[in-house]
Amino acid sequence: MRIGIVGYGNIGRGVEAAVTQAADMELVAVFTRRDPASITTASGAPVIAYDEIVSMKSDIDVLIICGGSATDLPWMTPELAANFNVIDSFDNHANIPQHFANVNTAAFKSGKVGIISCGWDPGYFSLARILADSALPDGDSYTFWGRGVSQGHSDAIRRIEGVKDARQYTVPIEAAVEKVRNNEHPEFTARDMHLRECWVVAEDGADKAAIEEAIKTMPNYFEPYDTTVEFISQEELGEKHGGLPHGGSVIRSGRTGNNYEFNNTVEFTLNLDSNPYFTGSILACAARAAFRMYEEGQCGAKTLFDVPPAYLSHHSREELLAHML
Amino acid sequence: MRIGIVGYGNIGRGVEAAVTQAADMELVAVFTRRDPASITTASGAPVIAYDEIVSMKSDIDVLIICGGSATDLPWMTPELAANFNVIDSFDNHANIPQHFANVNTAAFKSGKVGIISCGWDPGYFSLARILADSALPDGDSYTFWGRGVSQGHSDAIRRIEGVKDARQYTVPIEAAVEKVRNNEHPEFTARDMHLRECWVVAEDGADKAAIEEAIKTMPNYFEPYDTTVEFISQEELGEKHGGLPHGGSVIRSGRTGNNYEFNNTVEFTLNLDSNPYFTGSILACAARAAFRMYEEGQCGAKTLFDVPPAYLSHHSREELLAHML
Repeated sequence: MRIGIVGYGNIGRGVEAAVTQAADMELVAVFTRRDPASITTASGAPVIAYDEIVSMKSDIDVLIICGGSATDLPWMTPELAANFNVIDSFDNHANIPQHFANVNTAAFKSGKVGIISCGWDPGYFSLARILADSALPDGDSYTFWGRGVSQGHSDAIRRIEGVKDARQYTVPIEAAVEKVRNNEHPEFTARDMHLRECWVVAEDGADKAAIEEAIKTMPNYFEPYDTTVEFISQEELGEKHGGLPHGGSVIRSGRTGNNYEFNNTVEFTLNLDSNPYFTGSILACAARAAFRMYEEGQCGAKTLFDVPPAYLSHHSREELLAHML
Repeated sequence: MRIGIVGYGNIGRGVEAAVTQAADMELVAVFTRRDPASITTASGAPVIAYDEIVSMKSDIDVLIICGGSATDLPWMTPELAANFNVIDSFDNHANIPQHFANVNTAAFKSGKVGIISCGWDPGYFSLARILADSALPDGDSYTFWGRGVSQGHSDAIRRIEGVKDARQYTVPIEAAVEKVRNNEHPEFTARDMHLRECWVVAEDGADKAAIEEAIKTMPNYFEPYDTTVEFISQEELGEKHGGLPHGGSVIRSGRTGNNYEFNNTVEFTLNLDSNPYFTGSILACAARAAFRMYEEGQCGAKTLFDVPPAYLSHHSREELLAHML
């Protein structure tokens, strides 16, 4: 299948690697709102201006949209669904119903398929939640993120006066994870589940105490958590905190039995050296599913909840039955 | 939806609990090849002779078949698929393609849906394998079982002369699990991955040394593993080893990145106080999916690979989008 990528940031690069490594996919082009001449792709795929995208309609089977959830995807995914099968990794949980409705309207009109929110959360973590919830309807689900870099929280620190650079790690609290695994069904505050660990490069002469105070009291981002702040040099930040690792666990603890006498846990855990390359990899297999659903006549907005898992796989039905079931 | 259960062993009881606890399901009857008068169900559901099952055709939306994979399911699932939507937990991995083909022929002819192999392995573990494999095509998958009771291995010990009763635990070797988690991509023998722990009640005057030797040298079952054998009283076996706990982990370690430079692990772990009640719970939600697929006009044999995860859930699409994605 012929794939186009919209946007060439971290996730766009992750999709590029996954698509070029997939034997059943061809990367046709990367589309950008920047000057195409300013971008050289890792794979050598051509870079084309976003404004020309509709002219490529007959050359592309699925577009994978790698924009931001805050300002790009809300308009871009519905706009592109008017002409293409589309995939995105929209991750603003509160706005998913509205985004789904917007993409659905556009994709129904065009007869195309649009699968939204195909990353790992939302995405694979959502699948873990629905599978665990379906098998254990009487129970409680918990999501722990990390240890990993939160780009949103890192950006929030960088906006503080006197901060030159920063990296924020979200760290699950092991004692909280253990309580869930032990079927204690705890009720947690945000502070009970995660720590926030900040590595900050201050500008020369900056007031470090003021920076630390500004971080720790920042509403929503840091105030509800126990937060540590360490100041380091730009060199050390680059050396020790240059990557974008992430991961986490979805754990559901639930009871079975005539009198709900049996405890059970279902746990799904990711450990990722690179968050964007793994996200890109999921987007690529979601594109495979979108194309198959389109080919069989489906249209409208979808999520991974609507996708038969076999459609994500490059293996044939015979291989799946013989080796993976 | 109106559910029938075929067979009232451990798994049948597990299905009964899950079905009677589901607000959208009604348990119509349990069917048995034993004397119906000899069985009293936990829920009070009527028990009907297997031979009368076809006469109930119009009263049942989905039959959940809870027979054994060795001798019951190979003929029973295709036979019943001629008249009913059916679910089973067929778990003889090597014979799955043949069983699938047999059920497919029958279900296509009748216009019914038959979802096979809906336990946790095959079943939910299979879903973990396909999701992990799809996102990380370059990698290796490993399945660890336990710590948990293997009924097949317990039965094998019971067949040894001088053995009154026995329980066998399959135990994953933690060092092997850690190697996989550390992205070492190990090549394992059976002995590297699991221990077999046996608790045996000997008959009075039995030759314990001979029993231990017979266990440890039993081909396929125990010879390929490091096996421990402990002799205990029937009372102690009942007290300490009376349950049927099980579980395990599917772990895939795979690489992403333009040069496959990033390591990642995807891990799915179950910890079950009761293997048959959890299996019964999955069978129940698979029945929900089968009925929905049948209602939309599908037919033939399916596996969980073919089921959109939303079909397993009792939640509405709106609830799923708002709270679970």
